[in-house]
Order: sequence, then C-alpha cells, then structure tokens
Amino acid sequence: MRTLADIGEDALIARLVSLAPTGNAGEGPGDDCAVVDEGGEMLRLLKTDALVEGVHFLRNADPKAVGWKAVARVISDFAAMGGTGEHFLVTLALPGTMEIAWIEDFYRGMGECLALYGGRLAGGETCRVPEGSAAVISIAATGSVARGNAVMRSGGKPGDAIWVTGRLGGSLVGKHLSFFPRVEEGRWIAANLRPTAMMDLSDGLAMDLPRLAKSSGCGFRLMREAIPISEGCLLDQALGDGEDFELLFTAPPDLDVIGWREMFPGLELTRIGELVPEGQGDSLAGGWDHFG
Amino acid sequence: MRTLADIGEDALIARLVSLAPTGNAGEGPGDDCAVVDEGGEMLRLLKTDALVEGVHFLRNADPKAVGWKAVARVISDFAAMGGTGEHFLVTLALPGTMEIAWIEDFYRGMGECLALYGGRLAGGETCRVPEGSAAVISIAATGSVARGNAVMRSGGKPGDAIWVTGRLGGSLVGKHLSFFPRVEEGRWIAANLRPTAMMDLSDGLAMDLPRLAKSSGCGFRLMREAIPISEGCLLDQALGDGEDFELLFTAPPDLDVIGWREMFPGLELTRIGELVPEGQGDSLAGGWDHFG
Repeated sequence: MRTLADIGEDALIARLVSLAPTGNAGEGPGDDCAVVDEGGEMLRLLKTDALVEGVHFLRNADPKAVGWKAVARVISDFAAMGGTGEHFLVTLALPGTMEIAWIEDFYRGMGECLALYGGRLAGGETCRVPEGSAAVISIAATGSVARGNAVMRSGGKPGDAIWVTGRLGGSLVGKHLSFFPRVEEGRWIAANLRPTAMMDLSDGLAMDLPRLAKSSGCGFRLMREAIPISEGCLLDQALGDGEDFELLFTAPPDLDVIGWREMFPGLELTRIGELVPEGQGDSLAGGWDHFG
Repeated sequence: MRTLADIGEDALIARLVSLAPTGNAGEGPGDDCAVVDEGGEMLRLLKTDALVEGVHFLRNADPKAVGWKAVARVISDFAAMGGTGEHFLVTLALPGTMEIAWIEDFYRGMGECLALYGGRLAGGETCRVPEGSAAVISIAATGSVARGNAVMRSGGKPGDAIWVTGRLGGSLVGKHLSFFPRVEEGRWIAANLRPTAMMDLSDGLAMDLPRLAKSSGCGFRLMREAIPISEGCLLDQALGDGEDFELLFTAPPDLDVIGWREMFPGLELTRIGELVPEGQGDSLAGGWDHFG
C-alpha cells in the first residue's frame, strides 16, 4: 500500500479534493487560505493550521513563544492574501501529563499575538492524546479581505517579476518562534503594487516558489545571487530552511516600488527573478515536505 | 506541578479564558459553538473539534465511518444551537506510514456527511506526527443560525422542564461511528418549542446535564426512571457512555410538544426532569472527562 511518506503533501491534496463537496468555496487547494464569496464588499477567508510537538516545536520550548507562533502562522497566511485575521479557534490535543502552567503560558502567547494584530479568540477545544504521543495544536480562523485586494497564488503571468520581502534563512536557529507576520506589508502590497500572485514563505523558497509558479501555470527563472540572505546564513539555508514567513509575490515587470522604503523602513523588498512560460526556466530542489 | 490529568477539562477552560482577547465574540466558553454577531439577520457560528486515534477511533476502524463522525460531531454542535453548518476545514496530523487509501476513504466519509447536511469542504491542512504518535484529526467549521432562533446553554430557569431526544447509551458498542446529527430536530425545537437552553450530548448525560444547569445558573432534578435507554443498555450506560449526540434542552413547564410526533415519527422526545434553583436538586457522577 502507498503511504503518506511515499506520495508527499502536494500530491496528496491533489488526490483528495475530488472526494468531498467543495461548492464554490475556496480558490482551490494549495492557496494560503480558502476564500468564500458571500456577495458583500469583503471576501471571507478561512484557514486552518497545525503545530506538532517534535516537528514544529519541542516540549522544552518557551510555551509563550509556541502560542505566538501558532497564531502568527495563521495571520501570515491571511497577510499573504492581502487580508487580516478576525476570529480564532484553538484545538489542543495534549497528553494528560501536560502541565497547566505550560498551557496557560501558551494561551498568553496566543493572546499577545492576537492583541497586536487585532484578532479575537472565539473558542477552543481540548482533548487528550495517549501518553507518549506528540501534542498537536490546531488553529482555525476566519479573516477578510476587500474584494478588489484579494491576491491568490494563481494570477502570475510569464514576464512578471518575482519579489520577496525581508531576508531568508535561519529559522532553524530560533527565528521561527518569534517572527512578525507581514500583515501591513501584505495589505500595502495588495493596494499599491498590483501583485498578480502572492503567498507567504512557510516551507522555504525552494519548495514555495515552484508552488506559486505551478498555481499560476508558469515556470520561473531565479536570480540566485539576488536572494536576500539572513545574516550568518548561507544560500542553502535561504532556499531550504522554511518558516521565513516573508511574502513572495509577482507583479508586472515595470513595477515602481517607490513608497515601499518610506512605508517600511529597514525592510528589504528584493526582485529575485521572473515568471516564464510553463515548462521553461529553472528547477529547484530542497525545502520542507511535511511527509518527506 | 499540576497537570491536565489533575484539573480536568472544564476547570482548565475556566482558567484559560482570561488569557487572550475574546472581544464580543462567543457566548463564553463551554457553549456548543462560538457565536459572532456581525449585525445581520443571521448569527455566525464557529466550532472546532478533534478526533484522536486510540481515544475517539481506532486505526482499524472503517475510515469512511471515521470521516463521517468527524464531520457529524461538528454538525451536531451547530444543531445544538438551532443552526446549521456551512464551510468546513480539516486538519490531518498523521504519521508518515498512514496509507493513502485510508485518507481517501476518510475524505469520502466526510464528503457523504457534508453532502447529506449541505456543508462544503473549504480547505484543509496535512502535517506529520512522529512515528508512534496518535493521529489527530481536527475539524473547524463555520455555521449560522437565525438571530431569533439561537439557543445557548445559559438561558435555563428554575422550573423549566428538561427534555431529551432519542435514546441514550450504547455508543461504546459502535453507535458512535454512525450517528445522524439532529439538525432538523434542533431547528424545529428552536422554532417551535421555546427552548431556554440546549446542547448536544457528547460526553454523557451525567457530565453534560450538570454543565447545562451550571451554565444556566441552576441546579437540576433528574427523573432517572424516565431516561430513555437504548435497547440492550443499562441506566449506567445511558448516563455515562457519552457520544449519544442527542439533543438535551430545557423549556417552560407548560410546553406543548404536539407536532413533534408528526414531524419526527419514531424519534422519542422525553421529559426527564426539571431545573431547580442553584445549590438545590441532584448531583450526578460519571460521564466522560477528556482528561480523567
């Protein structure tokens, strides 16, 4: 029998989408959020995300930082659509030996991130995993984006330039627990830079850029020497560490990015390549496959 | 240090709610769903729920039935507010050895339940748990209820009669994988029977009736001889098995239930007690504590 480890995450999702009714909800599998059009001025965004002990965090990690990360990851997905988060639900599947103080600090960390970004905790659920099993923390949330500003992964065109915010690499040495989702940046990009496709970098540029290009029906050409690398890191880390939570987007090649520096002083905005017709361009190996 | 096993689920939730911003979202912790008032004719409902391998299902269980159960549990919570489900998100935290065929059948089971009850799968997320860890399946969903028909757990008054749909007990011998959420029943009750409080029975009458009474600031008196018991079961099973997914509600004592039998032929509606002032009445032991 074929197992998850054989097939990988993207191929699995592609196989599953035909098996349950999806109606007109969602921009299809693989985008940062599901998009629900209820006819109003705002589109509703839906997102679920999980953290697994031993995979995304260790039991001895600061629980406030884990709580921050759990919420910030989801907010980053809303940012990648040009939107913001609203109501959050948390599911904690925990061993009975988990200390109450750990859970309380986890909630405090969630609370600090929600307070900073304007989200609300609407509810939660706790349940027990068998002793010896990894704790699993799942966050689900609703968000919204103005109809004209929603940016999918699928709108890129051959010739579009590829841009990235900030610097990449280094999450494995600790940055992954303390990042700030690019919410204001995402909204500003959506409103000012005519982005054709956008996503947040959660699994590494080497995994995520091919996903964006594929969603847009394109290939890509990457200028490796232009990739902004975090201090003390190497190119391989910038390509493969994952959990950068920077924004990757495409825009017409004549894009004028004047205004960015005044809005977001100290945060790089770097052109790293271009989309090309499907079947052409570069290929990339590496990045984080959840079942690899 | 105090652990989850020491403190129990209800006490934990009470400690956590002050630690993150909740705004005006939610009817407070402990209700079946969070309620978000966006000002329109319909109130938005939000719910998250999890199934844990070895706790809620076994690896050798029919995956279609597990998928059905995962969705049906959440639909049952919407039903308990008098509402219905709309958009569903699924998070699968699975070991890499999980067979693709299992996951596909799980999706088919979810799909059948969604198709029957009119829900849509809006998105999902898969991630890996370490080998040997229990699989965790989390469902999050949005729903809605007409403003005038929303029924919380907190509105019961001393003197209100306590009612229950169907028969209780027996989930442990298999019923828990194949139940039908009481969606039409919940809507009809909300629209026709002036319920003051309602919930679905997920952890057993012995655990859930005290919760409803406490949420309403009441005690309760239970007519044990009146409890409708599933064929082949004993009273202890009806009180403590959990996962009945029948509706428990309170209503003014003069309630006229004429109409029920024609609407729902073959489904019992049974008066099993009454609410009394707080501090009075019966106490109940048993039921399912997720950390007991």
